[in-house]
Amino acid sequence: MKTDKTQDGRYAARGVSAGKEEVHAAVDKLDRGVFAGAFCKITQDFLTGSKSKCNVIHSDGSGTKSIIAYLHYKETGDASVFRGISQDSLVMNIDDLLCIGAVERILISNTVNRNAVNFSGAALAELILGAEEFLADMRKLGVKAYSGGGETADVGDLTGSVVVDSCAVAVMDRKDVITGRDIKPGLAIVGLASYGKAKYEKFENSGIGSNGLTSARHDMLCPYYRKKYPETFDSNTDKKLVYCGPYMLSDKLPESGMTVGQALLSPTRTYAPVILALLKRHRSSVKGLVHCSGGGQTKCVRFGKGVHFIKDNLLPVPPVFKAIQKASKTTMREMFEVYNMGHRMEVYCPHEDAEKIVKVAKSFGIEAAVIGRTEKSARKDGKNHVSVACGGEVIEYGPRD
Amino acid sequence: MKTDKTQDGRYAARGVSAGKEEVHAAVDKLDRGVFAGAFCKITQDFLTGSKSKCNVIHSDGSGTKSIIAYLHYKETGDASVFRGISQDSLVMNIDDLLCIGAVERILISNTVNRNAVNFSGAALAELILGAEEFLADMRKLGVKAYSGGGETADVGDLTGSVVVDSCAVAVMDRKDVITGRDIKPGLAIVGLASYGKAKYEKFENSGIGSNGLTSARHDMLCPYYRKKYPETFDSNTDKKLVYCGPYMLSDKLPESGMTVGQALLSPTRTYAPVILALLKRHRSSVKGLVHCSGGGQTKCVRFGKGVHFIKDNLLPVPPVFKAIQKASKTTMREMFEVYNMGHRMEVYCPHEDAEKIVKVAKSFGIEAAVIGRTEKSARKDGKNHVSVACGGEVIEYGPRD
Repeated sequence: MKTDKTQDGRYAARGVSAGKEEVHAAVDKLDRGVFAGAFCKITQDFLTGSKSKCNVIHSDGSGTKSIIAYLHYKETGDASVFRGISQDSLVMNIDDLLCIGAVERILISNTVNRNAVNFSGAALAELILGAEEFLADMRKLGVKAYSGGGETADVGDLTGSVVVDSCAVAVMDRKDVITGRDIKPGLAIVGLASYGKAKYEKFENSGIGSNGLTSARHDMLCPYYRKKYPETFDSNTDKKLVYCGPYMLSDKLPESGMTVGQALLSPTRTYAPVILALLKRHRSSVKGLVHCSGGGQTKCVRFGKGVHFIKDNLLPVPPVFKAIQKASKTTMREMFEVYNMGHRMEVYCPHEDAEKIVKVAKSFGIEAAVIGRTEKSARKDGKNHVSVACGGEVIEYGPRD
Repeated sequence: MKTDKTQDGRYAARGVSAGKEEVHAAVDKLDRGVFAGAFCKITQDFLTGSKSKCNVIHSDGSGTKSIIAYLHYKETGDASVFRGISQDSLVMNIDDLLCIGAVERILISNTVNRNAVNFSGAALAELILGAEEFLADMRKLGVKAYSGGGETADVGDLTGSVVVDSCAVAVMDRKDVITGRDIKPGLAIVGLASYGKAKYEKFENSGIGSNGLTSARHDMLCPYYRKKYPETFDSNTDKKLVYCGPYMLSDKLPESGMTVGQALLSPTRTYAPVILALLKRHRSSVKGLVHCSGGGQTKCVRFGKGVHFIKDNLLPVPPVFKAIQKASKTTMREMFEVYNMGHRMEVYCPHEDAEKIVKVAKSFGIEAAVIGRTEKSARKDGKNHVSVACGGEVIEYGPRD
């Protein structure tokens, strides 16, 4: 479930729900698959019927990040910005699959729901070609992901702009699955930076992913966009919360060489080439992988049992998150729950193996460090919890249901 | 590509695009797969790497039919109506897969993009449980389709209501693929009715699928909905074309025991149990299958080579399509291009085998008949074309690019 969570009142007021009791009740009735506790739901091998194999089918999309691209496109006429949105949608799937060890033989389909009056055929072509290009680039790096087709629907009564989603599938040997069960007390947590420029990237990345973009967009961008693009916000929302920030997309982001638009639109980095190398060279060292997407730095709390996740040596917070925090006045507690804040992929490994994991990441030009460790849960009920050290204080997060 | 096509001006004015040159140019660059000309794009077996196998990954959704369910739900509080929308989304995929012979071992994921303020958790739960229930019902009938998970995104800035999509995947033996190449002159076309009540259905079906619903909704439903539900139409659209019809959802549909709402919301029938039986019992008789989705009765023109599709004995036009035609004043020419008009699945077979195909369909309680035949193309360029006989006249349709 993709939700943008900042400041209860604000995010509920922006059409991003908090109470999901009925949904949880419905989802709780569903089968949890053959490796309950893994990062993705994994089913028996329905596709080929092998007992030694299993399947994963995973859907996610670029969420409301497409709206920021839409604003940029409308302002500048530059449709190529949607290539980044294709990457966002693909990586939100691919990098989730990495966390169960699915890094080869991935088949992907893309779905675009658009308003054909507002969103042109030229822009749609960029979305389609962007997906193909990104996957071709990945294959050159050894990540065998393929597009098997896609769907475009003209649904102007459903959207004023464009909704971009993808679905990724893999058939895996069960013995290769990273189950999440090996995330136990006593491990090092290596964080792989979300910012900077990886050797396989064309541009510097701000560190932003595809989570929290409803809040970031409204809290960062100024009322100019509210007046000009009414098709890009929910008419239910109190106008005081719509595009209520200080910036134009073309403004300079503080402490950065990027514009605000470039920073918010940085395509979600994939860690696939790094994880592929790690699994080839150091498979036995990798006890778990966590993609810090929805839930940000607290995402990890769902994995393993009886674990206290201590994050006390985080990478520096990139300028884009500092600017979002400043503009939105979101508490740091909530910032860490929504945004990756500096690293979007975590490798759980024995302490003695951490340095070689860091080295592999750095060989791809990606900053990495031991950002923390796992210990035994300090709670009476033995449930997982997370402590994040930030600016002299420690923020505590309890378990999730 | 899902488009609602009725009366050029009207459908372009409703945000459903006509000119798609850039999109075609983009798509034309893409690989067409290993069986170009098949109903779905089929790729080499990326998923397991077998030379004797192939893959299909297919995405489609319920389109704007979800809005009609939304109106019904808002008016009555009955969230269970969304179970039908889940079925629509699933069947738009499953019945496309049937046409290449993929009727077993299908893995499916669902994606729901919703406005969490307008579209409640209770309604979302019905969508989720509806998908599970439909697939469980199918499995009882031998159609091995499984849900592998799904995604829900709260994106109130992208939609005022709800967007429901699915993605379906299969790994097939290449030898089992229905390639479309055997659609040649000299065959009978058996049409399987879209209306009535199949033995495996709980309610009578109006015959509607999930195509053409933008037009049907606006041309059938009255301005009451325009005033009350502004979140359900594109603000670009000329108000004269928005909910400009004669009916309330609760009104009786002429010549029918259904209400207008029931007729427009009839869940898209799946033919999977019938096609499964056909392929088990009469595989060699089945030369081709065409799902009359987007393109309606002209969909077939894309398949086979040098073929004249003659449809001169169509099943009776169900009341829902008559009412849409009357309300919208759409020409019959366009009605046949948008709606199935009575049968949504076609079986191409040798004339001598047609009766046993009809018999299998009827054994499931589905009306069926030899609705036409294929002959050699009568065009100078030898391209495919279609002739539809309707009310004493014959409507001619040329090839599509």
